[in-house]
Amino acid sequence: MTLSELATQIGAQLQGTASNVMVTGIATLTRAGPQEISFFTNTLYREELAHTDAAAVILAPKDQHLSKVPVLLMENPYLGYARAAALFDNSAVPPPPGIHPTAWVSPHAMIEATVFVGAQAVIEAGAIIGRHVIIGPGCVIESGVRIGEETHLRANVTLCKGTQLGMRVLIHPGAVIGSDGFGLANDKGQWVKIPQLGGVDVGDEVEIGANTTIDKGSLGNTIIHRGVKLDNQIQIGHNVEIGEHTAIAGCVGIAGSTRIGRYCMIGGGVGIVGHIEIADRVQITGGSIVLQSIPEPGVYSSGTPLQLTPRWQRNYHRFKQLDELTRRVYTLEQLLESKQ
Amino acid sequence: MTLSELATQIGAQLQGTASNVMVTGIATLTRAGPQEISFFTNTLYREELAHTDAAAVILAPKDQHLSKVPVLLMENPYLGYARAAALFDNSAVPPPPGIHPTAWVSPHAMIEATVFVGAQAVIEAGAIIGRHVIIGPGCVIESGVRIGEETHLRANVTLCKGTQLGMRVLIHPGAVIGSDGFGLANDKGQWVKIPQLGGVDVGDEVEIGANTTIDKGSLGNTIIHRGVKLDNQIQIGHNVEIGEHTAIAGCVGIAGSTRIGRYCMIGGGVGIVGHIEIADRVQITGGSIVLQSIPEPGVYSSGTPLQLTPRWQRNYHRFKQLDELTRRVYTLEQLLESKQ
Amino acid sequence: MTLSELATQIGAQLQGTASNVMVTGIATLTRAGPQEISFFTNTLYREELAHTDAAAVILAPKDQHLSKVPVLLMENPYLGYARAAALFDNSAVPPPPGIHPTAWVSPHAMIEATVFVGAQAVIEAGAIIGRHVIIGPGCVIESGVRIGEETHLRANVTLCKGTQLGMRVLIHPGAVIGSDGFGLANDKGQWVKIPQLGGVDVGDEVEIGANTTIDKGSLGNTIIHRGVKLDNQIQIGHNVEIGEHTAIAGCVGIAGSTRIGRYCMIGGGVGIVGHIEIADRVQITGGSIVLQSIPEPGVYSSGTPLQLTPRWQRNYHRFKQLDELTRRVYTLEQLLESKQ
Repeated sequence: MTLSELATQIGAQLQGTASNVMVTGIATLTRAGPQEISFFTNTLYREELAHTDAAAVILAPKDQHLSKVPVLLMENPYLGYARAAALFDNSAVPPPPGIHPTAWVSPHAMIEATVFVGAQAVIEAGAIIGRHVIIGPGCVIESGVRIGEETHLRANVTLCKGTQLGMRVLIHPGAVIGSDGFGLANDKGQWVKIPQLGGVDVGDEVEIGANTTIDKGSLGNTIIHRGVKLDNQIQIGHNVEIGEHTAIAGCVGIAGSTRIGRYCMIGGGVGIVGHIEIADRVQITGGSIVLQSIPEPGVYSSGTPLQLTPRWQRNYHRFKQLDELTRRVYTLEQLLESKQ
Repeated sequence: MTLSELATQIGAQLQGTASNVMVTGIATLTRAGPQEISFFTNTLYREELAHTDAAAVILAPKDQHLSKVPVLLMENPYLGYARAAALFDNSAVPPPPGIHPTAWVSPHAMIEATVFVGAQAVIEAGAIIGRHVIIGPGCVIESGVRIGEETHLRANVTLCKGTQLGMRVLIHPGAVIGSDGFGLANDKGQWVKIPQLGGVDVGDEVEIGANTTIDKGSLGNTIIHRGVKLDNQIQIGHNVEIGEHTAIAGCVGIAGSTRIGRYCMIGGGVGIVGHIEIADRVQITGGSIVLQSIPEPGVYSSGTPLQLTPRWQRNYHRFKQLDELTRRVYTLEQLLESKQ
Repeated sequence: MTLSELATQIGAQLQGTASNVMVTGIATLTRAGPQEISFFTNTLYREELAHTDAAAVILAPKDQHLSKVPVLLMENPYLGYARAAALFDNSAVPPPPGIHPTAWVSPHAMIEATVFVGAQAVIEAGAIIGRHVIIGPGCVIESGVRIGEETHLRANVTLCKGTQLGMRVLIHPGAVIGSDGFGLANDKGQWVKIPQLGGVDVGDEVEIGANTTIDKGSLGNTIIHRGVKLDNQIQIGHNVEIGEHTAIAGCVGIAGSTRIGRYCMIGGGVGIVGHIEIADRVQITGGSIVLQSIPEPGVYSSGTPLQLTPRWQRNYHRFKQLDELTRRVYTLEQLLESKQ
């Protein structure tokens, strides 16, 4: 591909070189060779940009002066990187349609002719699989599950009864969608299971990470709206609803019946209690614990700083008397005021 | 089913309607139609109760005056909901016994005639599977594993050597029981694996969530006593012991050799250090970190509040000097006292 | 095995008994019978040592006086325990080579004759599997994956395209290596996937726990250096690098592009933000959140103490005004100073 063709395909403006230079891949600023392009989005890498051997670098017009090599100008160079990486992604070629001889597909499943089903996969009765769907090896699709067109399940994904996926959904290995919610009633100290009668509704273009779990609703559905992006090892409880285009990083846990708005960004390891509402455009930084609704957009955090352990221990123990300390300060203030 | 039959089966007292009204399902107060029942357990939903179209609502006698529709009176209406949901649970019909033609069952496994083994499942030599057990598709049951009567494994569960399950256990997809504990000895900077020679002993009526992992004991067993309920993505280290009827929410991690009492409730995302003891009837709220034994029952918490990030950052940095701040207040107190 | 033979094999010095006493196993101090050995590494168990029935106890010379039974003296008795447990580990016998009839192995995979492939496993085209490798039942090895000699995958492991494992690697059930990193560019509110073009490079003698996930690099590889030990349910983001002989406990999350040094020890549930560097020989205690680089070795912590919830709530709320409180103390100090 020539630089000129690449510029056209990613929507960038090429400057500083002959447009017919050939490029064969994309790499970091440090590793890119003279037949590869790179990108610059973070001023931390200013030195690397100054010394890169790349054929051209995708960057924003405001950073153009930092580059000695040709540039591919875009207002959003990170988007340019995404588009360029897609052009060089060899794995993007879909497998030819067909059902692997070791897969087991129920004769009562409805599967379009253009579907690919991988080795050792299982598709139970009543499943409905749309056109150009890819089911990876070892996946289990339980009875009645519906999968929209061009959706792609990588290996060893489990879709339980009651799950419905939209179009162009991408699910990574080990994810479990539609497992039972954690519904229990207490009968004199012993737990009685509440049968989970709902399902999971996953919108178009949703991505779900490796070993992430999404429980079905108790009554009604757990809903993941279109464009939501979920990283690995996330746990989503029953009847949670996540608004469009919200992105959630790894190891987040969201307890039952919580509603999260649209265009939110939730950092890694965040824990969110059940039965609350989080507004649109809320950002929560990694490791925070959310115990109450967040009615306004903004960036939110909780937690304490990392310190050398002996020093931390002293502050840690003082936290136990923080309320008392505040009262002591108040007493001092009153005392001094009375003396004036 | 008539309302009268339903009342009898869930142990409620029907009031305010003809007993022969037919009902076909259960739904939330908002969604229930005139042929469905609903339930009311949380005063937050008082408005929804006032406007419900349900045929009848399960609720406590003290809340009877809030309902304009007929009622199913029970002291524990949430238990009534659990029982009613079970009556309407279509998925509760077990599959007919038999071994799926694509499953692989060792001729040296002992399997009762009433067992169901799903597609692509694996049962190794020496496994002993009790009556009416259901093994979901893609499960792997390693050699020597024992499974009690009426236990149900959903899809893609892995039971490693040394695992023993009681009766009526329910395990959700992706769970791994009996993986090696994290036992390492340090030999001049390098780690030497400690072979894990124990097993996992899971009692009757235990439920284990999707992608939860329970390690086998190093020497002796990890023990999950009867009636314990574990949500998704929980990690339980080697030689942990969890007492009867304790419930643990998602994403909890419990390090090795810790003992947790009976009737405990542990919130989502809690982390519990190894080699400690937690008494019976302890409750720990979500996101807490437990670094020491808890010898007394009660409700416990740790953590800091969520705030807008700029404001949080100021408090976060002050935490580093909390011990010093406490000393400064003490100095002020001494100074003022000396002046009086 | 005689005690004398055992002493030789674990590198201990036997004292206090005839060397030809036979032993058949290893157990805890409390449970060991007169034909079993035990070990003592923690002074908490001094009472148990005083009353043990073990044939002999592995312990350090400094603790020899605490034992009434014969001793196996070693400077590092925990290492002695590891070695002795290996001698009594019946499960250590590898399965005979061969491909299970229900496995599916592509004719375009390269597999040494000494490899074992378990039931229902899948090995795709272009995979290269070294000598004496064991692939457990239900594993999926995607195209082009390379596995070094004597590596052992337990059941239901997924290795995605771009993964390369060293020799003597051990991976527990449900682990996913080489899933896509969480790379997204934002295009006017909607997320555009950044194709993940790198891989995962896992060094020799690495151990990876059950349901742990390791993402492939975006460009270049995620690198787990030799001797690293990872517990269960860990999430490792794209382009993370973990130095030799670092051990990481369960439920840790490490965000993208972070570099962790050698000989580190990271406690359970720790969260580590992306794009930072952690020096060699850093220890982080369980439940800590790491938001900045750690340039110096040492032991580090964050978090607040567990308290009874009503008491915690008062301190929790005071945290919101910690900065203000500090300023109030400063004001008092200034006021008193001005008066002197």
